[in-house]
Amino acid sequence: MNRTNKKNADRSVSRIGDDYMIIVMKPSSSEEHINEILRVLQSLGLGAHLSKGSQVTIIGVIGDKRVLNDVPIDLMPGVDKIVPIVESYKLVSKTFKPEASVIDVDGVKIGGKEIVMMAGPCAIENKEQIFQTARAVKKSGAKFLRGGAFKPRTSPYAFQGLEEEGLKLIYEAAHENDLKIVSEVISERTVEIADKYVDVFQIGARNVQNFHLLREVGKAGKPVVLKRGPATTIEEWLNAAEYIVSEGNDKVILCERGIRTFETATRNTLDISAVPVVKAQSHLPIIIDPSHAAGKAQYVIPMAKAAIAAGADGLIVEVHPQPRHALSDASQQLIPEAFDKLCKDISLMAEILEREFKYGD
Amino acid sequence: MNRTNKKNADRSVSRIGDDYMIIVMKPSSSEEHINEILRVLQSLGLGAHLSKGSQVTIIGVIGDKRVLNDVPIDLMPGVDKIVPIVESYKLVSKTFKPEASVIDVDGVKIGGKEIVMMAGPCAIENKEQIFQTARAVKKSGAKFLRGGAFKPRTSPYAFQGLEEEGLKLIYEAAHENDLKIVSEVISERTVEIADKYVDVFQIGARNVQNFHLLREVGKAGKPVVLKRGPATTIEEWLNAAEYIVSEGNDKVILCERGIRTFETATRNTLDISAVPVVKAQSHLPIIIDPSHAAGKAQYVIPMAKAAIAAGADGLIVEVHPQPRHALSDASQQLIPEAFDKLCKDISLMAEILEREFKYGD
Amino acid sequence: MNRTNKKNADRSVSRIGDDYMIIVMKPSSSEEHINEILRVLQSLGLGAHLSKGSQVTIIGVIGDKRVLNDVPIDLMPGVDKIVPIVESYKLVSKTFKPEASVIDVDGVKIGGKEIVMMAGPCAIENKEQIFQTARAVKKSGAKFLRGGAFKPRTSPYAFQGLEEEGLKLIYEAAHENDLKIVSEVISERTVEIADKYVDVFQIGARNVQNFHLLREVGKAGKPVVLKRGPATTIEEWLNAAEYIVSEGNDKVILCERGIRTFETATRNTLDISAVPVVKAQSHLPIIIDPSHAAGKAQYVIPMAKAAIAAGADGLIVEVHPQPRHALSDASQQLIPEAFDKLCKDISLMAEILEREFKYGD
Amino acid sequence: MNRTNKKNADRSVSRIGDDYMIIVMKPSSSEEHINEILRVLQSLGLGAHLSKGSQVTIIGVIGDKRVLNDVPIDLMPGVDKIVPIVESYKLVSKTFKPEASVIDVDGVKIGGKEIVMMAGPCAIENKEQIFQTARAVKKSGAKFLRGGAFKPRTSPYAFQGLEEEGLKLIYEAAHENDLKIVSEVISERTVEIADKYVDVFQIGARNVQNFHLLREVGKAGKPVVLKRGPATTIEEWLNAAEYIVSEGNDKVILCERGIRTFETATRNTLDISAVPVVKAQSHLPIIIDPSHAAGKAQYVIPMAKAAIAAGADGLIVEVHPQPRHALSDASQQLIPEAFDKLCKDISLMAEILEREFKYGD
Repeated sequence: MNRTNKKNADRSVSRIGDDYMIIVMKPSSSEEHINEILRVLQSLGLGAHLSKGSQVTIIGVIGDKRVLNDVPIDLMPGVDKIVPIVESYKLVSKTFKPEASVIDVDGVKIGGKEIVMMAGPCAIENKEQIFQTARAVKKSGAKFLRGGAFKPRTSPYAFQGLEEEGLKLIYEAAHENDLKIVSEVISERTVEIADKYVDVFQIGARNVQNFHLLREVGKAGKPVVLKRGPATTIEEWLNAAEYIVSEGNDKVILCERGIRTFETATRNTLDISAVPVVKAQSHLPIIIDPSHAAGKAQYVIPMAKAAIAAGADGLIVEVHPQPRHALSDASQQLIPEAFDKLCKDISLMAEILEREFKYGD
Repeated sequence: MNRTNKKNADRSVSRIGDDYMIIVMKPSSSEEHINEILRVLQSLGLGAHLSKGSQVTIIGVIGDKRVLNDVPIDLMPGVDKIVPIVESYKLVSKTFKPEASVIDVDGVKIGGKEIVMMAGPCAIENKEQIFQTARAVKKSGAKFLRGGAFKPRTSPYAFQGLEEEGLKLIYEAAHENDLKIVSEVISERTVEIADKYVDVFQIGARNVQNFHLLREVGKAGKPVVLKRGPATTIEEWLNAAEYIVSEGNDKVILCERGIRTFETATRNTLDISAVPVVKAQSHLPIIIDPSHAAGKAQYVIPMAKAAIAAGADGLIVEVHPQPRHALSDASQQLIPEAFDKLCKDISLMAEILEREFKYGD
Repeated sequence: MNRTNKKNADRSVSRIGDDYMIIVMKPSSSEEHINEILRVLQSLGLGAHLSKGSQVTIIGVIGDKRVLNDVPIDLMPGVDKIVPIVESYKLVSKTFKPEASVIDVDGVKIGGKEIVMMAGPCAIENKEQIFQTARAVKKSGAKFLRGGAFKPRTSPYAFQGLEEEGLKLIYEAAHENDLKIVSEVISERTVEIADKYVDVFQIGARNVQNFHLLREVGKAGKPVVLKRGPATTIEEWLNAAEYIVSEGNDKVILCERGIRTFETATRNTLDISAVPVVKAQSHLPIIIDPSHAAGKAQYVIPMAKAAIAAGADGLIVEVHPQPRHALSDASQQLIPEAFDKLCKDISLMAEILEREFKYGD
Repeated sequence: MNRTNKKNADRSVSRIGDDYMIIVMKPSSSEEHINEILRVLQSLGLGAHLSKGSQVTIIGVIGDKRVLNDVPIDLMPGVDKIVPIVESYKLVSKTFKPEASVIDVDGVKIGGKEIVMMAGPCAIENKEQIFQTARAVKKSGAKFLRGGAFKPRTSPYAFQGLEEEGLKLIYEAAHENDLKIVSEVISERTVEIADKYVDVFQIGARNVQNFHLLREVGKAGKPVVLKRGPATTIEEWLNAAEYIVSEGNDKVILCERGIRTFETATRNTLDISAVPVVKAQSHLPIIIDPSHAAGKAQYVIPMAKAAIAAGADGLIVEVHPQPRHALSDASQQLIPEAFDKLCKDISLMAEILEREFKYGD
């Protein structure tokens, strides 16, 4: 275990409670096998409860599971399998902190009663485009301007972003319109650069398990929008959030943007149930990105409304003044008029749902 | 081709138009290979357009694709692959019939402006249970009483339903409360029995590609709620609907109930985007079953609201007067009080969404 | 519970042992909640072991889990979730019967040392085709002739099979060449018809959870090849087998044919690890269908060899004398020459793997 | 477009050929819509072929597709959708280079007739462990020693690797035993460090679309084992390889290690068909990691043999002298005796499969 880990472990142990897991013994296991396991557990300071059925014997283990990371109980003679009973994350769990976290970005609160709207182009392309978008989304009620400066693209031949030049443009556009900025970072170096311009870092879906990057934004201390990966379970996603929080930065906003399934009619399958599931398991706020899930502008509006109805704390929506001329992900970006109508509808829905959203600037 | 198929094919050909597909040739294909394919296409009465690139030659084919069912072009020398351009279903497609279908079940209209609520227990268990539920859901605004009499269960040791005795009970309970009945059929014999009692047949998720059963309910002529299978693409689902419609029964109501993905936090992953996708591709109405997708009562309410916000034409929700005593799927059934609150909320949402739903009886 | 279920349950209870499950209590649960659960468990004759951690209390439950089918413990106050510890199937489990089952089809043994080859066209098309194939596959070492007479097809406009006429043809072709017959059944009526001609019923992937059909072939008593569904977990598949065995028919041969995943380069994703997993959990034999998994003839050979290397007890391979003229699934059928080479290679592999396969007739 | 991209694009254009895609028009599209698109295509220097059916009009487009990255044709009026006909990668495609690439790592050739074995512990733990393993795997016929020094772990509380200290240990152990070294890199900084010690960089599954890292190892120039991500399609994986090759480094070895599906009996689902698919589409070699796919030692052996039978060019297998004491992924590591038996079996299989593998040192 290297120094950083030890430090984290120590820090956390003092703050968090017990785990629980079940060791299921094979029908063929002997008295001796069981006793050996009980001895090991005792030596590690873990509580154990033995239950014998006519076919199966199980041992319930209570205590800090991490002391078992180095002792593969499941390879000991007579053991069939280990069944974990409580989740592997701690700091982001509702068990650890039952009340919902509200993240304050310089006055804009995410996770409270207000529904927060983040909007802007997929990629920052030029001054006119980002200024036009900023004015438009502000007018409809957005509090955040989004726009990518570093674009991770599947093909090496696609447009890869304007980099720092793009961040300067979004900075000016946002400040002129009193908007906060959220923009994606993809490496240590880009965290350093973006830190000068953005209010909230975004970790993209493909980097949700880039643990090196998670630690970097954890150390940087700014709020983070953490997108779920296309093949990341909710539990793994919460563990990814735990990486950031375990560095001392608890300002994490989860963002569901669709998972990969066998269905190809949409780019991804928006897992709308992630909203109530996350609300049940974690105190962190959750927003929805309907644009990447849909992949088609015509599906964005119904999916955005569904997200709000399901209880999401906000949306991050792609808006582009002329999607036909966009340099990336053109087909999923809304025109400002469509976004405006969406905001109007959401302000009506908010009331019924006992939330708040102020349409218009 | 057997007689039944021939008949269907003949009937359809006269009603429906052309297909389009692309034959992509291998870089190594010769002039001769291409000419041979053109000869075959011509002999089948299919139009062909040749396009040559520096690397790839493709042949566009226009005409009724079904004449190709018996000629595997993709095995002819020089062929790399076939890319279909238009969908494989016809009668259920929006191309074939652009305006939305409204299905009239003895006065209750599904697919129009009204949001239709179907509710009831997973399984019919006894007289008291079904009568209590019928009164409760009627009071909140449901138009349909649901309840299973024939239960397909994963384990052979689980409760399998009350069969005809159950249908008699649901018939009385529904008629006492002026409700329509929807109930699942699982075989030819159960179609015959249920026909005496129900207003709408339900085809369960596991039978969505039980083509024998699809033809049976097609012939029976009554409206059908066709659930999507856990691993069925939207295109396959629409093809399953095509089976029913091709028997002359066009009263099909699609029902999304979650698909199987890697995520295990919910029983299935509700594919909320199926609503706008189906609306874009088919004229058939679509409703949502949030109960089977969620698997947990606490997730049912947010998912139900999301479904309505996404544009669904109705809901089918599991309601049980005492879920703790239910004989199947207990954890996902709502108590009447929760269902009542849901109906009230949906009546408010309906207005904003320019739909109609009358809360209360 | 209807009569049939009761009967099964009674029969099984006497033969099979205990289950084990864990009830995890919420951190907020009270002493009273726990006592109430203990009372219920006791009243049902189930053993219970209580374990208290600093955060979580769990109750281990031992006994026949089926008595809980009617009591939804997970809805009782204070309960967080239920974690099952042992599998839900019994009769097909290795715990129930540790030694491998060898299924004897009139002298041909499946599940023993011999690798059994089943081969033939996707669909029976005409006399010449099935006789030509029968002679060819016999010559290479096949013991079974396969061929569909009732074809479940995604589109209602595709070829649906020759029905009984087809079965008569395959019967003659097989008997002329001393081959056994395996052919798919899709409904009660087709079981009756096929019973006169085939040695082994096949349940197709789409019917793996058509429980009505499973019971029918269970009652019919003949050996059954049970294909795994495209979205069926290994546990559900073994439960489907349990349906057949619980009717008194233990001659079930499992057949893996690919599952549905996000990958589209092959028609399905062959889950090769199903072979060792099934061997670890069940005593039933398992064969592989590389043709439906691959969807392309060029991938069939490597996948067939992989299956044998992984320990499969046999293969079911599509072979057609002129795949270019096949009426269904043309692109995945092998020509007899390719099949012959495969059999030769497998006979060499068999020796190294300590199995037996006799190449040639 | 930033400078680096422009450079790549320029370089590639001169080396690679044409794309082909189909623009499908809506049934409602007008003559004018079509003419507008033809005008745009012509202005971009792209060839176009028009085909009109009774229902659908399509336009075939030939030329370098990348000129379309900035012109979203799919948003132009009248357009229904765009269907790409040829793959998006170029340099790694078999169309570009039909003969198989053989990658020479200082005398050890991967992708030729020889089956190459890479083996070692999941993580480097201490001197004794890595030296013991090195001696053992060398003795059985391995050519490469594997072992992680930087471990990306799902939970922030798990062991994260010995870092540079670990690389020094594996360097000594490998050199003492005349083995090459393959080890994972997870960031720019770790590429720099590892460059001093390893012969082959490994990119882990979670970093397959960490494009920043792909470019780094592309520039570094050393051979790279590129693992497929758990939710990465084969096409995306080949595009990831394209990133590396487009930096001028064509020494990429693909490594399949299982994909994420709904099945949970194994940690991942080994996609064995990836072997023939990759062989059909790319000239790059492909190896298999059965350990991460299986997640359980008892499944590793059958899956390793299946991989070789399917045509893989090698294996990367986890071997640990005392798996019970391993600090990570203990349950999936083989003991040296099991690995030795596997190597012996593979040497026998190699002959039948017309490959070579020398068992023993």
